[in-house]
This record gives sequence, structure tokens and C-alpha cells, in this order.
Amino acid sequence: MELGLIGLGRMGSNMTRRLLQGGHGCVVYDRDPAAAQSLVAAGARPAASLQALAKALARPRALWLMVPAGAVEATLDELRGLLSADDIVIDGGNSYFRDSMRRADQLRAQGIHYLDAGTSGGIWGLEQGYCLMVGGDAQPVARIEPILRTLAPGPQTASPAGAGTAPSGYLHCGANGAGHFVKMVHNGIEYGMMAAYAEGMGLMRAAAVQGRGPHAAEPLLRSELDLAAIAELWRHGSVVRSWLLDLIAHALHQDPQLSAFRGYVSDSGEGRWTVKAGVDAGMPLPVLSAALYSRFSSQGASAFGDKLLSAMRAEFGGHREPPAPERQS
Amino acid sequence: MELGLIGLGRMGSNMTRRLLQGGHGCVVYDRDPAAAQSLVAAGARPAASLQALAKALARPRALWLMVPAGAVEATLDELRGLLSADDIVIDGGNSYFRDSMRRADQLRAQGIHYLDAGTSGGIWGLEQGYCLMVGGDAQPVARIEPILRTLAPGPQTASPAGAGTAPSGYLHCGANGAGHFVKMVHNGIEYGMMAAYAEGMGLMRAAAVQGRGPHAAEPLLRSELDLAAIAELWRHGSVVRSWLLDLIAHALHQDPQLSAFRGYVSDSGEGRWTVKAGVDAGMPLPVLSAALYSRFSSQGASAFGDKLLSAMRAEFGGHREPPAPERQS
Amino acid sequence: MELGLIGLGRMGSNMTRRLLQGGHGCVVYDRDPAAAQSLVAAGARPAASLQALAKALARPRALWLMVPAGAVEATLDELRGLLSADDIVIDGGNSYFRDSMRRADQLRAQGIHYLDAGTSGGIWGLEQGYCLMVGGDAQPVARIEPILRTLAPGPQTASPAGAGTAPSGYLHCGANGAGHFVKMVHNGIEYGMMAAYAEGMGLMRAAAVQGRGPHAAEPLLRSELDLAAIAELWRHGSVVRSWLLDLIAHALHQDPQLSAFRGYVSDSGEGRWTVKAGVDAGMPLPVLSAALYSRFSSQGASAFGDKLLSAMRAEFGGHREPPAPERQS
Amino acid sequence: MELGLIGLGRMGSNMTRRLLQGGHGCVVYDRDPAAAQSLVAAGARPAASLQALAKALARPRALWLMVPAGAVEATLDELRGLLSADDIVIDGGNSYFRDSMRRADQLRAQGIHYLDAGTSGGIWGLEQGYCLMVGGDAQPVARIEPILRTLAPGPQTASPAGAGTAPSGYLHCGANGAGHFVKMVHNGIEYGMMAAYAEGMGLMRAAAVQGRGPHAAEPLLRSELDLAAIAELWRHGSVVRSWLLDLIAHALHQDPQLSAFRGYVSDSGEGRWTVKAGVDAGMPLPVLSAALYSRFSSQGASAFGDKLLSAMRAEFGGHREPPAPERQS
Repeated sequence: MELGLIGLGRMGSNMTRRLLQGGHGCVVYDRDPAAAQSLVAAGARPAASLQALAKALARPRALWLMVPAGAVEATLDELRGLLSADDIVIDGGNSYFRDSMRRADQLRAQGIHYLDAGTSGGIWGLEQGYCLMVGGDAQPVARIEPILRTLAPGPQTASPAGAGTAPSGYLHCGANGAGHFVKMVHNGIEYGMMAAYAEGMGLMRAAAVQGRGPHAAEPLLRSELDLAAIAELWRHGSVVRSWLLDLIAHALHQDPQLSAFRGYVSDSGEGRWTVKAGVDAGMPLPVLSAALYSRFSSQGASAFGDKLLSAMRAEFGGHREPPAPERQS
Repeated sequence: MELGLIGLGRMGSNMTRRLLQGGHGCVVYDRDPAAAQSLVAAGARPAASLQALAKALARPRALWLMVPAGAVEATLDELRGLLSADDIVIDGGNSYFRDSMRRADQLRAQGIHYLDAGTSGGIWGLEQGYCLMVGGDAQPVARIEPILRTLAPGPQTASPAGAGTAPSGYLHCGANGAGHFVKMVHNGIEYGMMAAYAEGMGLMRAAAVQGRGPHAAEPLLRSELDLAAIAELWRHGSVVRSWLLDLIAHALHQDPQLSAFRGYVSDSGEGRWTVKAGVDAGMPLPVLSAALYSRFSSQGASAFGDKLLSAMRAEFGGHREPPAPERQS
Repeated sequence: MELGLIGLGRMGSNMTRRLLQGGHGCVVYDRDPAAAQSLVAAGARPAASLQALAKALARPRALWLMVPAGAVEATLDELRGLLSADDIVIDGGNSYFRDSMRRADQLRAQGIHYLDAGTSGGIWGLEQGYCLMVGGDAQPVARIEPILRTLAPGPQTASPAGAGTAPSGYLHCGANGAGHFVKMVHNGIEYGMMAAYAEGMGLMRAAAVQGRGPHAAEPLLRSELDLAAIAELWRHGSVVRSWLLDLIAHALHQDPQLSAFRGYVSDSGEGRWTVKAGVDAGMPLPVLSAALYSRFSSQGASAFGDKLLSAMRAEFGGHREPPAPERQS
Repeated sequence: MELGLIGLGRMGSNMTRRLLQGGHGCVVYDRDPAAAQSLVAAGARPAASLQALAKALARPRALWLMVPAGAVEATLDELRGLLSADDIVIDGGNSYFRDSMRRADQLRAQGIHYLDAGTSGGIWGLEQGYCLMVGGDAQPVARIEPILRTLAPGPQTASPAGAGTAPSGYLHCGANGAGHFVKMVHNGIEYGMMAAYAEGMGLMRAAAVQGRGPHAAEPLLRSELDLAAIAELWRHGSVVRSWLLDLIAHALHQDPQLSAFRGYVSDSGEGRWTVKAGVDAGMPLPVLSAALYSRFSSQGASAFGDKLLSAMRAEFGGHREPPAPERQS
């Protein structure tokens, strides 16, 4: 079927390629005209503006937004004047589920269908397919099912019978907001898993090193551990095998000391929303929060609080901070 | 080659079967003679006692212990009098790595080789193979490599060249203690991953439910989420796909409300040792600790502290606890 | 000076009494007329309605709201039609600071001053005075300073010179929202301190008890600890002495087993807002979050996640939950 | 009574002075002879060696050790040959309670009494008195009660009747180990309280600052907060008033930006032991652990794990770390 794609960054352009390979017609737009041009050879039809894009698509239209969360509102504001009743707008990015619920209500008033489609798969999605979590009304979801089927990884064998479309890698999760909510929780879990691996790897790396402080322990082990080999090992038969572990093994194989990184870990917003949703639901999320907080700390956010702790120690015990930096690499 | 196996519980008996299928000779012993007898049809030779086991094995012997961590010390005490120089004893269970280091030193004084072999794979290992993390001297590790190769999942394709035995699912991790240390960290990570999924799933289940308390939020979503379908969905193309997620999807498919469980989560010791190792190394493990603490809380350990919190609220604010149980299922 | 008080619960009625004792004139209103009547003997003038209250006060009026956070919006909606330019409305309750910022803007459009006054002190405030954290414009804060001075504990000696009104127990913290924000953080810290004591006390209570689980440790100590005596002890010269510890000592002295409580710990909203503010600021709050989550867990919110953990353990290891309840009291 | 004091650092010398002021006879020893000499003017009798100290004391002796935890074992080894039956050795430092239990057993075999006396009060103890938590047999505790009474803050008024010695600031907590265990938990709670304040203060400092990251929030407040004034304010009537808060107010009054500190927060061992004791008891300590982990992070221990998180983000999403340092002060 025919789809308009808006936002041709890493994700948007790869999704376009996968759709083109699947035989769909794609009209594409990006603020940067070069991004649209680069997809022409693959079969996409570029549009020079949102207006041109709307014009180029047969009605009722289907448009897939793959723009940064911060740009969705403005894009919708512009699209609102260009679209017609029964058109479908899909937000495939990482928007806050409450925003998606609100936007769906606003567009519904105009007769436009809004779908929130959480999209997982990263830069590997072009090859392996994207996992799609969709929220919205049943009718527009059914209409874009050919798109979802092509973007998703497709049928696999070991899945239970009667599980609907989930084994193919896409699912209509519920009413508007449900798609982005499920994607948000997915990312929250992702943060937790990543932190679990990072803590464990950090501990193994420290195992052969003398501890710090006045009561510093002996090294835990008598020999160093080869983290790259262990990550590779765990991929085979262990309980912690996962796709993230595959990536860890790859990264450590290429750069065992990870010297290409300085350890400033960005967060993309979904981890934050997960924690806030947990607070709103009265649901304790100690692991997911700890994972988020590790990122905040890596960004230097604890600096003042740490100073205050040292100040308190100086006040009650006369303790001084160690004179020279003792930060370990 | 020939191996003596001691301890024929779920793990030990399945490992025996896999070894027998791989053409190895197995002499087996368990405190419960029926456990040994049940393996005769598969080709094992039962021994009625540790003494009989030691006698039945050609020298130099190789013995694999698969007994509960609490029974290792007593078993070694008895074996010490039955074994000879150059024999190899492998502890395949979940022993504390510091105990393994000490035991290796004790047996080394007798000329006996000790290997600590962390073993992952659970009840699926018979079919899929076990992931093996081995600590000890190189020579005895080399001698039992045929055993390791058979127990492990075996060669797989997508692994990097030159990665040694790791892509086959077994690895000599380092000196004594390293095997059980790596297995301990593996389980610590496992706790963290499990808790990440559990928190996320708990949040999704609560999403359509009214919150609690005076400022209780509206339900987060307008419709319930089908957790079984979402777990199945995420198996296909998502970033959080993993073997644990496969198991979650299976469990939720069979019992969506998990009504077979009451939520008392046991811990087997390795999570505790991981946290203690982190403390000894001065390494923060917020996620792995939080995962362990969730288990402690599920066991009711927070009860008195919770009462004290309510007592404080009564003291400063005159607040009373809600009269009737409000625990949600 | 003359003040109208709206909301005569535990806090509101005690504050009225303190103001009357300080020589101020109080016109009081509560949805429950009996609450207003009960203050007549102390010198308050009761009003039968908000309208009557507004009429009874000389202009420009000053009104202090001490109603539940959930009732502030409706009360303001009604007051808006009854008040005039230059009147001052003070919200002394625990409102969300973002709501207070919004409300101040709305009332400012009508020429009405809005102050957000975080109020700490609980049921002890009548006797000891209230700690007051005020946000809003400088002019109305100055106008109600006689009220603040009377409600607050008053001058104390050990404070640094030039510290303004803080040593007297009240402070103009900044623009609107700052008062409720500082009170919110105050309560977040309170949660953290309470949990720190509760965890420590829980650990001391467990010290003479056999642990749980397969690797259960010996009791940590050879004798039980008298928590009431220890709490009392720490009040004298220890680093952890505090007002909360005074309350703990009192509670444990009266009921050493805290048998009057079942350990359902409510949360009043401010702990939640603190965590959300931390997330918005990118500031890690591991301690304050953990304290909040302990309360959520005490409310039973972890139940489904715990079941899922048990289900995973059954899936990969065939582990069964222990048959009978093992919850410790 | 007469007491030998070993170890004349900040704590030991101040305790000597307080004892001398209380009329006790003090024979003092330190590895550094100058430390002993500096107490002569105050009335202490210096000893040039442990042997000389033992000789100078009338039998049965009472000796108080105030040496670093790492030096206790060696000091006891030397003392063992110099002491006689019925002598009392008190370890007033921060030793691990398990070590104290073991040492007491060893000395008991020689007929020597061993007491573990947790000592709180820091550099303020000289003036305000020390809070003393004592473990050991009843008879030697009774014998040194004059010492305990002088070191402790002494009777205060607001304490409950019949509370024994606790209101005076010293307590026989139980059998050997109990004293250091209670002190250990005290310090664990101290870590938690300190972190609660540090997190709250850090959040307030960030309130007027623009957040970080792609979804960075607006500043939470429209004006900055004066942390020094707020700390001072909370000392008067608030729920979070405490001695630690007194110290915070003092520190912020002197150096509002805490520019004298770089935020490397040392830990002295007792926080670590508390977490390990909790693990051994199966008791969740999320707040106390989080407080400890914040210190580990401040020491740079998370560096490798943070790099691994960035590496994973690069692997699955092609995300790059921000090019230039964005650490906030």
C-alpha cells in the first residue's frame, strides 16, 4: 500500500527501505531535502514539503511520523491543515503516551485517525525487522496492517498457537496511548537490563583489582577476567542470554577496554516517563529507577550532593577529602 | 571419557544423561539409591557409596559434584580420604567462590586438582546444553575438556573468530574461584534482568487500574493490556528479547494471571554473594541489590520496618493506618 | 492581625488556636459546622459559609486554606467570586508546586495575591510552632508576617547572625511555587530519613533471629537487642539524633513490638512529587525513591511482579514456591 | 577510676581530656610519642610503650583502644602478652562486630574481659559527650560504668522513666558484638540520613536550572533557592530537624557553594558492613544501600559500567556520546 513517511533519520530512512523492499509505495519528506533524495534510488518518491507530501498521497492517506519527540507537536500542527477525514497519522517515534492520548483526541475531532506505534529494533531493524506496539482504534490499525506486517520481523516458528499477530512482531495493544505506553515500559525494562549487565561486568572487571578505602579488601580473585570472552560464553546456553548480550559481546570483542567511550550515558526520555508512570500508579520500580539514576549520575548530576556529603563528614568528624583524584578508570 | 557424578538431582541427572548421550562413561552416586538406579537404563553405572564410586573409577579419576552448596564441604571431607594424587574434583554447583578458593588450596596440598565449574542452563540444559564457567589450573581443565564440550551447547555460527571455546559454551575463566565468581555474577545479572521484566510487567498490569491513596491518579490507560501477547510480541525484533523473555511468554500464555503463584520469591544465595562482592570491591550495584531486596520483601522481611514507618506517621501527624486490608492482588 | 481560616482539621484547628493565643483575630470556616463551633470558646468567630467568611473579614482580606490537596481547586473556584483585588489567599496545605504556580497566575489576573505556604510540624505544631516555607510575591508575604511570626516556633539562640527570619522558623523562599516545592523536598527527605531508621531498626530486630532460605546465616548476634532502649540511647550524643528519633523512642517505649500497627504505610503525595521532580531535573534520588517504593510495597503493589519472578524460577529451574506461608512478623 | 588509653588521634585525645576533666586518672599511649606528651598538661600520664602502659596501671587494669580498625588486631596481639586475668580491654573504635565476637572469645580463654564499645559523637564529643553502645559481659561493663558515665552526655530531662542508662547516653546493648553491631547500624542509618539530605539539597539547587537531555524540562522553579537559609529554617519546627541538619546549616552558612569540596565521599567501612549484615539476615536495606552506593559512585567506581552502557547504546541505536564534557558543577 502507499505510505507517506515524515522524518528520514536513521530510523525513518531504514524503515522506508524495508517498506520499499516489501513492495510498498513510499512518499518521503524530511526537513533536509538530501535525506529524501538519498532514498530515490531505492524507489521512494520525495516530497519537498508537508504540503507536497499530502498532495502526492491518494486519499484516504496514511502517514508515518518518525521525527524526534520534541518535533511531533509542531509537525501535527502543520499537518492538521493539510489532512482530511479518514486519513491516518501514525506516530512511530518515542512520544509520551499522555501526549499521544491527547493528540488522538484532538485529531479525532477532525475525523482523522491517530495511531501511536512504538517501534523497537534500532539500526538493526532494516535487516531484522521492527517490533511494533500499536495503540488506537481497531479500524485504522486494520487498514495499515500491510505496513505493519512488512516492517515487523515476520512469522517465526516457536510461538504458541492462537497468539494473533504477536509472533509476527506487531500487535494492536489497545486504545490510543497503549502503543507508546508499552514501548515506554519496553525501554524502561531495557534500561534495567542494560544496567544489570553493566553492573555485573563492572564487578567482574574490578575482581582482580585492589579495593579502595581504609578497609579496602584484597582483590576478590587471583586473576583477571576476560570480559569479552565471558560475554561471548554467556550467549551460549546461559540464563542471561539475550540480544543485548549479543551486542555487548560484539562491543567488547572490538574494544575490550571500551576506550572509545567516556561513560557519559544519555537518556532518551522513556526511562524518565516509566519512573513517573510507576509513581502515578503507586507501583515500586526500584530496578528501573536505579538504572535511570545511574545514567543521571554518569551525567554528573550528583556533584553538589556529593560535596554536601563531604561537607557533613568534615563537620562531624573533621574528615578531609583525599587530596588527589583517586578516580579509577 | 569416564566421569564420576555425585548428586543426581534435577541438574545432576540431566547432565548425566547428556554425557551418556555423548558417549561418555558415567559412574553415578546419590544419597538416594533410587536416583542412581533411575539412570541405569540410560547407561550409567550406579555406585552404592562414595567409596564404591572411587573404587569403580580408573585413575586418575575425574569426579563431578552436583550437590547443594550446603553439602559440598561434607562431601569433600569424605572424598578426601578416598582420592589420590592427580585426581580431579569438579564442583559444578553454586558454591561461594571464596569457599572454592579455600577448598582448592586444601586439596592441592594433597595433590588433588579442584575445579570450580559454574553451570547455567537449568532444566533446559539436557536438551540445549549447559553454559560452563570453569576456574582452576589449566592442566586439569584441559583433561576434562571432552566432558565440557559435551555438556556445553556446542559450536554455533554467529560468533567471532578466534574467541576460543566461548562460542561453544564453555570457558576456562581463570584461577580457582573464577568459575564460581563468574557464575555468581551471572546469577546476579539474572536477578536484575528478572526484576526488570517483573517491574515492567507489573506496571503494565496496573496501567488500567485506579491508583491508591489520597492523590491517586486516574488509570494510566483506557484499556487493559494483554501481558501474554506483549511478552510474545517483544520476542520478535525488540531490544529486550532474551531467553528469560521466552520463558515469561510461555508462563503468561499458560496462566495469564499467574494464579498458581503466591509471590514468595526464594533466593538461592548467589544474589547475596554478588551484593557482598560488590561491597567488598567498592562497586555500586544498585540494580542487582534492588532485585535481591525485592525478593527479601516478597519473603515478608520488611514487616517490622513497615510498622515502624506507620508508628512514626502516627507520632508526628496522628495518621492512622487504613482500617481494612487494601492489598491488591 | 485578622485572618480567615478555611479547613479546621487537625492542622487547621491547632493553627487557629496558636494564632488566637498570639492575639490575632480568627474567622473560621469548615464544611463541618461543628469544627468551627469548637473553636469559639478559644476566641474564634465562626462563619457558616465561605460567603459569610468573606463578608466577615475586613478588606483587604487574608485567608489561610488548610484543606486537603484534593479540595483546594474547588475551594479556590468558589472563593474567586467572593474576593476582591489585593486580598491574599494562602494555601498552607500540601499542594503540588506546579498547581500552586498555575493558581497564583490565575488569581494574579484578578489582582488577588496567592501564597503557597508549606507547613511542617504536625500535631506538635500547636505547642512547638510550625516551620513555614512561603512562596509568592514579597509584598503580600510582608503583609502576613505577623501571622507567620506567631505560627512559627520563634527566635532561638544558636542560629547564625544575619540569617533573616529562618532562625525564627519561617522563610520567604522565592516566587510562587517555591514554598510548596521546598515543603515537597522537605517531605521527600522526611521519607528518606524515616526509611533509614526503619531499615536500621528492622536489621537490629532481625539480628538475633535465624535467617531464611537455603544458605540462611546463623543469627548475627548472640542476644536480642532492646530497640526502645537503643532509640532512647541514640537521642543522647549520637550523630543520628533528630526529632524523628525522639518520636521513634516514644513509640517503641509505649509499644516495643509495634503490635498496634500492621505495616500498611500510606503516602501523602509529596514523596511522589519529589521523585517526579527529580526525574524532571535529571537528578538521581536513589534514597528518596527507595523510601517511597518501600511504602508502595507495604501497600501490596509488588504482588504481581513477585508472582512473575516465581513463575520465571519455575520455568527455568523447576523451582516451586515454599508450600506454606513463611512470612515473618 | 584509672584507665589506660591507647590511640590518641582526634577521638582518643578528646576522650582523654573529657575523662581527665571528669576526675579520672588516664595513662595514655600512642605510636607517636608527641600525641601522649600533648595530653600531659591536661593531667594524663604518658607511657612510652604498651609494655610501659601495662606496667603503669594498677591491676585489674582497664584499657580503652581508640585505634584504626585495621590496627586493632596487631595491638591486641601485643597486649595479650602484657595483660593478666580480670583485666578489661575495651575496643572503642569502629571494628567489625564479627571480629569483636571472635576477639572476645580469644581473650576470654585467657581470662581477659573484652568489651566492644561503639562510640558516636565525632569531634563534638569532647564538649557534648559521646554516645556509647557497649557489648560484652555484665560484670566488666559494670566495672567501667564510671568511665562510661563521664564520657557520655549525662542525664537529660525529657526521657521516659525507667529507661535505665540510655537517657544518660550509654547502654549495655548485649553480649559481645552487640556494641559494635549497634554502632554499625547507627552509622548505616547515618549514611541514609546524610544521603536523604544530600539528595534533597541537590534537587533544590537544580530547581532553577534548565534540565539536560533531549526532553529536558523547563526549570522547575522561577527563582533560585537559598539552601543555607532553608537548612537554617528547617532547624526550627520542621519534621526533618536533626543534629546532622544543624551541621548542614553551619556548612552552607560558611560556604554556600561548598566550593571547598570536590565531592569525593569516603566511606569508613561501617556502611559496607551494614549492607552485608542485611544480606546475611535476608533484610532489604534499599535506602542504606543506595546511600553507600552514592559514595562508591562519587569515588568513580561506576566508570567502566557507564562506558558499557554507552557502548550498548552505540551498538543498538548508533547513538554517540555528546562530544564535549557536559558535567554540571
